Amino acid sequence: MTIDERIKASETRIFKAVFPNTTNHYDTLFGGTAMHLMDEVAFITATRFTRKRMVTVSSDRIDFTRPIPAGTIIELIGTVSHIGNTSLKVQVEIYIEEMYSFNREKAITGTFTFVAIDEHKQKVSVL
Amino acid sequence: MTIDERIKASETRIFKAVFPNTTNHYDTLFGGTAMHLMDEVAFITATRFTRKRMVTVSSDRIDFTRPIPAGTIIELIGTVSHIGNTSLKVQVEIYIEEMYSFNREKAITGTFTFVAIDEHKQKVSVL
Amino acid sequence: MTIDERIKASETRIFKAVFPNTTNHYDTLFGGTAMHLMDEVAFITATRFTRKRMVTVSSDRIDFTRPIPAGTIIELIGTVSHIGNTSLKVQVEIYIEEMYSFNREKAITGTFTFVAIDEHKQKVSVL
Amino acid sequence: MTIDERIKASETRIFKAVFPNTTNHYDTLFGGTAMHLMDEVAFITATRFTRKRMVTVSSDRIDFTRPIPAGTIIELIGTVSHIGNTSLKVQVEIYIEEMYSFNREKAITGTFTFVAIDEHKQKVSVL
Amino acid sequence: MTIDERIKASETRIFKAVFPNTTNHYDTLFGGTAMHLMDEVAFITATRFTRKRMVTVSSDRIDFTRPIPAGTIIELIGTVSHIGNTSLKVQVEIYIEEMYSFNREKAITGTFTFVAIDEHKQKVSVL
Amino acid sequence: MTIDERIKASETRIFKAVFPNTTNHYDTLFGGTAMHLMDEVAFITATRFTRKRMVTVSSDRIDFTRPIPAGTIIELIGTVSHIGNTSLKVQVEIYIEEMYSFNREKAITGTFTFVAIDEHKQKVSVL
Repeated sequence: MTIDERIKASETRIFKAVFPNTTNHYDTLFGGTAMHLMDEVAFITATRFTRKRMVTVSSDRIDFTRPIPAGTIIELIGTVSHIGNTSLKVQVEIYIEEMYSFNREKAITGTFTFVAIDEHKQKVSVL
Repeated sequence: MTIDERIKASETRIFKAVFPNTTNHYDTLFGGTAMHLMDEVAFITATRFTRKRMVTVSSDRIDFTRPIPAGTIIELIGTVSHIGNTSLKVQVEIYIEEMYSFNREKAITGTFTFVAIDEHKQKVSVL
Repeated sequence: MTIDERIKASETRIFKAVFPNTTNHYDTLFGGTAMHLMDEVAFITATRFTRKRMVTVSSDRIDFTRPIPAGTIIELIGTVSHIGNTSLKVQVEIYIEEMYSFNREKAITGTFTFVAIDEHKQKVSVL
Repeated sequence: MTIDERIKASETRIFKAVFPNTTNHYDTLFGGTAMHLMDEVAFITATRFTRKRMVTVSSDRIDFTRPIPAGTIIELIGTVSHIGNTSLKVQVEIYIEEMYSFNREKAITGTFTFVAIDEHKQKVSVL
Repeated sequence: MTIDERIKASETRIFKAVFPNTTNHYDTLFGGTAMHLMDEVAFITATRFTRKRMVTVSSDRIDFTRPIPAGTIIELIGTVSHIGNTSLKVQVEIYIEEMYSFNREKAITGTFTFVAIDEHKQKVSVL
Repeated sequence: MTIDERIKASETRIFKAVFPNTTNHYDTLFGGTAMHLMDEVAFITATRFTRKRMVTVSSDRIDFTRPIPAGTIIELIGTVSHIGNTSLKVQVEIYIEEMYSFNREKAITGTFTFVAIDEHKQKVSVL
């Protein structure tokens, strides 16, 4: 596979219904719950791209553009956005979909950096 | 959109890493956790197809073909598989992906039936 | 013990209060949460009957007869309903009890099939 | 029903498999998880006895007699043990069952006190 | 360090926002959730004081003085309150803080007893 | 109170034991779990400083300097680090403490930005 094909093949999605166990007292998705899901989708994307042991190094700025109301559906999409020697970046976007209309809007964006390590915790190539 | 396009557009995916908070004492994904995720992906698929209030009526036979070890990745895929007047069926498949190889196998299959209701809890057309 | 006595002795119950962390946006118990609990009670029933390693093979049709409102109590009851050579079936019923009356109704019914395995993952007799 | 019959009818049981999401770093059931379950079974017992709004007032001494290893089954049993005018006590016992033997031992005992209140939060008779 | 300095240094705090995933059907913090957090803060306090393996032996009477409404903040404070040879006691207090005022009140108090054990599960000195 | 006194008074701490329900398949704290806790401590810090409705706007770069092994204790500390007109920044640090030694090291650092809003969702002064 080419790099582009590997990027496409490693794209990773998580849909989730915003039920009460994920919300705060404003009846919107708690930011921390969103970040938890973002790191999970980013980690899976990075692992599926490299098929190596990946460790989170950092998250870049995450923008919470709009609140996510209870009773909506969210989709997280993780995509490899930059490939270094021993590290790569995954961009994660969260979209809100209203349940009972076709409205869909981007709500949160962020980027996560991972490094690939071997079993001795030494950095290795991501490719 | 045609029905086929709506089926395609409502296809719903959830990736998940099999971490210790989802496993049983055999160190494999607990069956109940898998069923929880299957109902969630089925519910979202049904809602995204109809954009109406959907209620789970039943699940048909669910086959747990192979155990899902801790430290793997799973992908759930929900697809509308049958459309009735006020009900529809969603097929859900769970695939295992090993983290550090390209092995991917189907592990669990099931079908869920939903009905569409209005705000007075009366059945309505799914289309 | 006779088989009937073992069936009686392995009957397994789980009561649960339907609090917000178990509900969907309709303010009723999320179907996936119910299935999670059903598999747990079925697994415990099967294990307590055989005292052997049990693995979920399949669930038969599960009927969600009525929604379970937040603020009620549910009781799950698991009972061995069929005994094969290396497999058995457990029937699970969920009853709703209103908190502030003696109303009690059956809400969900399902059947789960398990096989008994030894430490080498070979099927063994359930008896 | 007589009081004794009501006590018998309100006896409440919760079985649970001790999986990794309930354990501490000693690979035994975390004490706080046990207390969470004990309060839940006590609350349900009290509510099923009175069919009134019950509020936890206190827990008496809880003895953790023996650790509960991962990979066992526990049963919690709640029983009304004392009936006052506007309050009652529920005794909760937790038993460990090994999965692959008939060994069963008491592990934890405690007593919880509840008061009955009406919709204006005034104390009312528990009977 | 003197004992008093060690007590001060091992004081342990947990703040938590009371969101829907922690509440009961009265829209107040579920008592079992409070007890779970109390045991966690007590365990950490005991471990940070002794830096040895600590096991919960018992909780003394826990008083739930006032209900904790959804949409408030709680602070748990654990403090070593008694030091024996192989055991110690930790007092835990829970305070409610309203989010949008400076009101702060004590809501729950309890005491937990721990013993120190070595790797052979023999009791050892807590000092 | 002066601003400095308010900053000091709003400092917010969460201790947590790293048990299996928070770890990944490397047996270290899952990054997403850390981020969830960081946003919670940041939100509580911001709310306790302003006593107004606070909404997460963004997180700046979060550095995961070292992995956090299972069986350790973490402390999160949130401190207001910058005060604007309608927004403020909270710095969050996570420290690892080994259970059975006095070793303590910083593991993760990040900064979160919040805005204050009134009941009509209009921005208001944070002071």
